[in-house]
Amino acid sequence: MTHLSPARELSAQTIDPMYEWARDLFPVCRSITGAGTRATLAYIRERLPGLRIESIASGAKAFDWTVPDEWNIRDAALFDEAGRRLIDFRASNLHVVGYSEPVDLWLDLEALQPHLYSLPEQPDAIPYITSYYKRRWGFCLTDRQRRALKPGRYRAMIDSSLAPGVLSYGECILPGASSREVLLSSYVCHPSMGNNELSGPVVTLAIARWLASLPERRYSYRIVFIPETIGSIVYLSRNLETMRKRTVAGFVVTCAGDERAYSFMPSRTGETLADRVALHVMRQLPEGFKRYSFLERGSDERQYCSPLADLPVASIMRSKYGTYPEYHTSLDDLSLITQAGLEGSFRVLRDCLTVLEANRHWRAVVPCEPQLGPRGLYPTLSTRESGLQVRDMMNLLAYADGKSDLLQIAETIGVPALRVAEIAKTLAAASLLEDVSPA
Amino acid sequence: MTHLSPARELSAQTIDPMYEWARDLFPVCRSITGAGTRATLAYIRERLPGLRIESIASGAKAFDWTVPDEWNIRDAALFDEAGRRLIDFRASNLHVVGYSEPVDLWLDLEALQPHLYSLPEQPDAIPYITSYYKRRWGFCLTDRQRRALKPGRYRAMIDSSLAPGVLSYGECILPGASSREVLLSSYVCHPSMGNNELSGPVVTLAIARWLASLPERRYSYRIVFIPETIGSIVYLSRNLETMRKRTVAGFVVTCAGDERAYSFMPSRTGETLADRVALHVMRQLPEGFKRYSFLERGSDERQYCSPLADLPVASIMRSKYGTYPEYHTSLDDLSLITQAGLEGSFRVLRDCLTVLEANRHWRAVVPCEPQLGPRGLYPTLSTRESGLQVRDMMNLLAYADGKSDLLQIAETIGVPALRVAEIAKTLAAASLLEDVSPA
Amino acid sequence: MTHLSPARELSAQTIDPMYEWARDLFPVCRSITGAGTRATLAYIRERLPGLRIESIASGAKAFDWTVPDEWNIRDAALFDEAGRRLIDFRASNLHVVGYSEPVDLWLDLEALQPHLYSLPEQPDAIPYITSYYKRRWGFCLTDRQRRALKPGRYRAMIDSSLAPGVLSYGECILPGASSREVLLSSYVCHPSMGNNELSGPVVTLAIARWLASLPERRYSYRIVFIPETIGSIVYLSRNLETMRKRTVAGFVVTCAGDERAYSFMPSRTGETLADRVALHVMRQLPEGFKRYSFLERGSDERQYCSPLADLPVASIMRSKYGTYPEYHTSLDDLSLITQAGLEGSFRVLRDCLTVLEANRHWRAVVPCEPQLGPRGLYPTLSTRESGLQVRDMMNLLAYADGKSDLLQIAETIGVPALRVAEIAKTLAAASLLEDVSPA
Repeated sequence: MTHLSPARELSAQTIDPMYEWARDLFPVCRSITGAGTRATLAYIRERLPGLRIESIASGAKAFDWTVPDEWNIRDAALFDEAGRRLIDFRASNLHVVGYSEPVDLWLDLEALQPHLYSLPEQPDAIPYITSYYKRRWGFCLTDRQRRALKPGRYRAMIDSSLAPGVLSYGECILPGASSREVLLSSYVCHPSMGNNELSGPVVTLAIARWLASLPERRYSYRIVFIPETIGSIVYLSRNLETMRKRTVAGFVVTCAGDERAYSFMPSRTGETLADRVALHVMRQLPEGFKRYSFLERGSDERQYCSPLADLPVASIMRSKYGTYPEYHTSLDDLSLITQAGLEGSFRVLRDCLTVLEANRHWRAVVPCEPQLGPRGLYPTLSTRESGLQVRDMMNLLAYADGKSDLLQIAETIGVPALRVAEIAKTLAAASLLEDVSPA
Repeated sequence: MTHLSPARELSAQTIDPMYEWARDLFPVCRSITGAGTRATLAYIRERLPGLRIESIASGAKAFDWTVPDEWNIRDAALFDEAGRRLIDFRASNLHVVGYSEPVDLWLDLEALQPHLYSLPEQPDAIPYITSYYKRRWGFCLTDRQRRALKPGRYRAMIDSSLAPGVLSYGECILPGASSREVLLSSYVCHPSMGNNELSGPVVTLAIARWLASLPERRYSYRIVFIPETIGSIVYLSRNLETMRKRTVAGFVVTCAGDERAYSFMPSRTGETLADRVALHVMRQLPEGFKRYSFLERGSDERQYCSPLADLPVASIMRSKYGTYPEYHTSLDDLSLITQAGLEGSFRVLRDCLTVLEANRHWRAVVPCEPQLGPRGLYPTLSTRESGLQVRDMMNLLAYADGKSDLLQIAETIGVPALRVAEIAKTLAAASLLEDVSPA
Repeated sequence: MTHLSPARELSAQTIDPMYEWARDLFPVCRSITGAGTRATLAYIRERLPGLRIESIASGAKAFDWTVPDEWNIRDAALFDEAGRRLIDFRASNLHVVGYSEPVDLWLDLEALQPHLYSLPEQPDAIPYITSYYKRRWGFCLTDRQRRALKPGRYRAMIDSSLAPGVLSYGECILPGASSREVLLSSYVCHPSMGNNELSGPVVTLAIARWLASLPERRYSYRIVFIPETIGSIVYLSRNLETMRKRTVAGFVVTCAGDERAYSFMPSRTGETLADRVALHVMRQLPEGFKRYSFLERGSDERQYCSPLADLPVASIMRSKYGTYPEYHTSLDDLSLITQAGLEGSFRVLRDCLTVLEANRHWRAVVPCEPQLGPRGLYPTLSTRESGLQVRDMMNLLAYADGKSDLLQIAETIGVPALRVAEIAKTLAAASLLEDVSPA
């Protein structure tokens, strides 16, 4: 879109493989801890060499929270008396309640029922259920499966372990000219789901690769792949002071893969640079976008924007969690997300970051209007397009007071910020604008 | 409604007798000075022992004004030649123009006419007329009575006196933990009228009794019963410096007795704490409310909000003075006001004061979201109501930045301030919020 | 309208001759330099003795610009082979492209065409074309004339000169009690056109004569008659520092002569005193007005409001340049403007300046409401009008906090500022208001 964005040349490495990455990662059984999440982080690190994987021991304190025991699962099934696997973890890792304690016992249907979870209104969907902070075991199944269970004896077998271990997360810092930084945060803690899990990390990975490929960056970038909630709390407990000092804007990347909608959720105040940039970019989407309230929040912005953290973090999404029927069920699978859906999120996010990089304070150098002609800035061919070009140039010069940032000027003169940025570059090269951005 | 409001237990002493007090006080002939106003103040003091009655001598200066002579009246009538009392002060004290000078003379109908006041468009209403600052005498009568007067001789007799005396008002200071105070102001200067006189003092008396009964008060309360205009000017001339320093919010209580509407009039700027509190409470009225402009003012807010006084005073009313047909006539009688009408005003005012008391600055103690479960704050039974409770708790925590007051947070998260106050108390007890209200 | 405006008595010298002045100046061939512009300035100086005519030499630098050579023209025509003047400069000075270089040559129709300018969609209009900064020659003609040209030989003769000389402008400073000043700017650089040329200078001349006639002025007035763009740039290059320190408000006066509309264009920020005053006055126009955006600017506000100048300058117009069909053609002639059209602009501008002069900060002297009666301020006859008078008086007193200027109060209480100014004068005379305007 602009020469700040060499994304096209790099699309084979960044954009194109997004869906494939999602397909690779889909079968892995992730949770807030455990081997599946570590495998996912390792997969990302293979594609983003700067990623560091951190491990925090169970029992470690993080503000009001404690890192829980690590959960791992090898197998699970509900057997009938004939030894048939009626419900089989190997078919879908959603069949087991997340953080189920190990169990292997025979019980009759009545005793089994309190351990079964299904959705009568979505009879073909396996619900996604977890119980991180209360010891439980259970199976999730379609309501059709559940209704097919006949009175009788069943063997419930969950070969899991819950024991001291670590919570893992990935962090990639891409240094820029300034130590001031932009935060990108996505989560890796849901098992086999598409929009509400894998879309987030794969779009974030693509963006990270694109950022890493840039010849220069104005800002530094802090990119984190964490388990939701406990992960961001742990991460903030170790980095908050630095992040408060440095963060100019941040985005939670989640639910970024379907094609049904674009969605925006503001930061707590709704007035940070992250909000302004995202709204400016999303207002230009021909498809439009849904605007949610911070009162409808539900992901890691709950931690980033909490009043003592108070980071400028907004959320950019396609169909928001909690608002689409497949959410938190087996129906949120690889068919719900598409390469085009992921690319839409990539483009919005990339444009936001490009605008952030370009969001300088420009000040006119010459009092009064300058002469464009002698500087070769006046189009020699007069067309509708060239007329608009001159108009935008003069409007940028008219508002370049050094106090307004480029984004404000773009909004005032009704021109996309990326176009204003290009014009600013031309005018700066002609010594008509000077960069007076605050340090 | 909250445990700050033990009003229900006290309703027998506070709310229930309001209409009865109005009935007791109705026959008294009040004016801006005189025995009727003193009797009214004495009646109030019997029910509010903290009330001090102050008397300011005629001739005393108050800013641009001078306390006028005291007016008293014993009897008045218009007699026909047969000595019949055609217009009789004993039937209604509205029959005499307020501050009428004494007179006893015979005159024919033509000479009498300039001294008669009636309302052709409301033929059964006696108008309420006064002439405080220009010496006059006159009778007010229904237009039907007036048209029945036949040419002939009449005796006009007004047994009144206008002589140096005092202007009286009542003042009750209820001390609180802070010397910062809330002003409540009502007037006692109209003769037998219901909505535009007695509703104000009886609701204010009930509120004062409720405030006096509270085990603790955050703010001090300055409650005044004064003659309108000259009374508030005299009062301010003696207390303005203190009031400017101490007043956080104030309310003029007037026209508080009918059931037809709730009405709000802002302070001069419309942006004081009094405005914010009253609007928050009144927006929750299922009946809705009428919102007037300060340009439609007409009671003692004219003095309290005058630019050199500049107190944060708004007005809470049922049907506003000047807007209902019975206003300033004999039709504004005890049938216009009702116990339910008075109780509505009481409740709005009580809720405003309760919100004021609870309007603290809360700040989260723990960075990031806290764990509600271990603290027993997570409802054990999951219902729609318990879900809302958790949502409101988390929303309060999300906005508890120590800079916003409780009222702002309540508006932001869309929850009544009194409910937010209860949640805040729970969270403070669990050490999740700390009170950082400015001193 | 107020006694600050003795305009009516002076109308014979100020308002009445406006159309006549336009008629006198219409035939003169003005450009950004040259004898025609000097003659126009001399004409204005005859009627405004304080006017100083400044001359800046060709080649002088003005910020990013250089004063161009002076252009003068004596005659021009397009002859057919029979020697007939088909296109004749003596018929309309619009027939020659402004700044045409001298030429006298025979050429056939095909070679002539690139030097001809006409408007196919307005076949009876001669377009107005200039080429200040690129050497060219050309004829402007109606499209009907153009289509009548038969193949054949033509003689193109333009007896012009382009040589070092001067750029001239007029400046009149009317001193006031304060050195803070108001800017009025109009341009004198278009040949025979009515609305988009002469209306501006004649209304400005009338306003200048009215200002000069005032017994006293609060502000000083800087009134300039300049060639558009290069003239304001040259003027600012010599006066910007002073103007930045002194200017409280300014107006570009252009397109001020037709009767079809009133138009307003804000300053760059839209929030200066000039904007506030003009909007207040224009909102009272019974005809309404069109409100343009600064993005639609096109006259000298482009220089005055440029970010390093940043002067508080708005534009007051009738039909705005670029928006009416006759614009920049021979159809914008003396029939397009009318005495009534010019007077409308005069009145709006005069009212704006009167409001500016009266825009003081008033503060109440007496705490609480004062007594109007004893001061003779209470109307003795009670009419609807007298009621409004008392209401406005009390409303002014209620908002006279010394911080709001008169304009803000006028907007708040919904009364024209000139009426508020009269009331303020009455109340100040009665010692109820004091002037606390910042120095």
